[in-house]
Amino acid sequence: MSELLHAAGRIRIVLVGTQHPGNIGSAARAMKTMGLQRLVLVAPERFPHADATAMAAGAGDVLEVAPRVATLAEAVADCRLVLGCTARSRRIALEELPPREAGARAVATAARETDVALVFGRERTGLDNDELQLCHAAVTIPADPGYSSLNLAAAVQVLCYELRLAMLGLQGQAPIPVAPPEGGEPPASHAELEGFFAQLGDTLDAIDFHKGRAPESAMRKLRRIFMRSRLDDRDVRLLRGVLADAQRMARLASGGGE
Amino acid sequence: MSELLHAAGRIRIVLVGTQHPGNIGSAARAMKTMGLQRLVLVAPERFPHADATAMAAGAGDVLEVAPRVATLAEAVADCRLVLGCTARSRRIALEELPPREAGARAVATAARETDVALVFGRERTGLDNDELQLCHAAVTIPADPGYSSLNLAAAVQVLCYELRLAMLGLQGQAPIPVAPPEGGEPPASHAELEGFFAQLGDTLDAIDFHKGRAPESAMRKLRRIFMRSRLDDRDVRLLRGVLADAQRMARLASGGGE
Repeated sequence: MSELLHAAGRIRIVLVGTQHPGNIGSAARAMKTMGLQRLVLVAPERFPHADATAMAAGAGDVLEVAPRVATLAEAVADCRLVLGCTARSRRIALEELPPREAGARAVATAARETDVALVFGRERTGLDNDELQLCHAAVTIPADPGYSSLNLAAAVQVLCYELRLAMLGLQGQAPIPVAPPEGGEPPASHAELEGFFAQLGDTLDAIDFHKGRAPESAMRKLRRIFMRSRLDDRDVRLLRGVLADAQRMARLASGGGE
Repeated sequence: MSELLHAAGRIRIVLVGTQHPGNIGSAARAMKTMGLQRLVLVAPERFPHADATAMAAGAGDVLEVAPRVATLAEAVADCRLVLGCTARSRRIALEELPPREAGARAVATAARETDVALVFGRERTGLDNDELQLCHAAVTIPADPGYSSLNLAAAVQVLCYELRLAMLGLQGQAPIPVAPPEGGEPPASHAELEGFFAQLGDTLDAIDFHKGRAPESAMRKLRRIFMRSRLDDRDVRLLRGVLADAQRMARLASGGGE
């Protein structure tokens, strides 16, 4: 057995906007067979529901303790690695991980006592772009391009299977997961990153960066740049210090004084 | 892509004595998402059935051509490799393969133009000993010993996923994950990056970020942040635009005007 099994306690499976309660039950069963217990439900259409209980079979305990929250941001607020499962897509430029690597990275991160989320979207439409913006990387199961529509619970099963192989040290030659940036500092939490992005948005307004253009596109590109660099707490403090001085200059420029 | 994809035509998924027709449909869907088409049904309790068709979703074609036979022996008569999926069991002395090795062996065998079968038993009782006697090896998914009861279609999904990885040649070293720089733009050149860092340094001076501290340490940390995010040309143009506006504000603040 592997010392990595305890990582399971730091890994949550997040289902966003699930439409069919039976899929929630099937996902809970898939998780429990692979030794995972932490399920979080974001705005499920119908839950609790008899179909969920029936499909969970012996995994009803996973359903019973699964918190329900209104937004993905709440579900991952304390996570330092958020992986979003998507069909291959170029809608958004996120680092794209195969399931094997996602499992290795998730388990290596959770083993450092930091919380990790694997996020699964709606049956028909998956995760929307705003939700993908909250993810550090996308996970794509290498399905047949001719018919790539895995059932939601089937996708959960495949990812939980890779998580279990990683926890058991059975992944074979999975690559060494990327080391945490800057001297082993843990990556910044979702909340810390969102605070930074909010201040970045305010700063762009203050220095009149947009000049009438819609701010969304620039912010989206800037978010990707900083998400890719896997900022740790000290990085965020440094960058926020730079923004604070830029904001101060903007106040001076507008005659607002110190 | 891999030259092994044609092996799919030589690999059949055999479901023995399936009790719930919905599981037959889910298994067909799981197969098709992984590029597999050949399903054989041994004495299904209820088939065809509306539940099977419903759960197959877009994989109804796999169901339509699936032969039904009376015994496992008929289903695998022309196969030279038969792998039986079982929960870990010592009921019978069979070589036991993990899914990854099973997928590799099945695809390597099928690539030699010999037929291969992966056999899945009944939901409750699996394969009986006479059926296991027809198998060359047993395949066991490394489930949690505390709750190892994978749904039938979930087990088919895991095995078909491993078959696909093997067909794509992705089983060994996972491929380097692609971090697509915005729309596949090439990474910024060294000169472009240095131009950006020079402007960043000027900006930190202009907004009085250092306040008497030596600038080297902050610049070193900021360089690492941006180096990690693998900026492309458009990223650099965007960031330099932000810096230009911050510099403009600093000039205004110091009374330098536009």
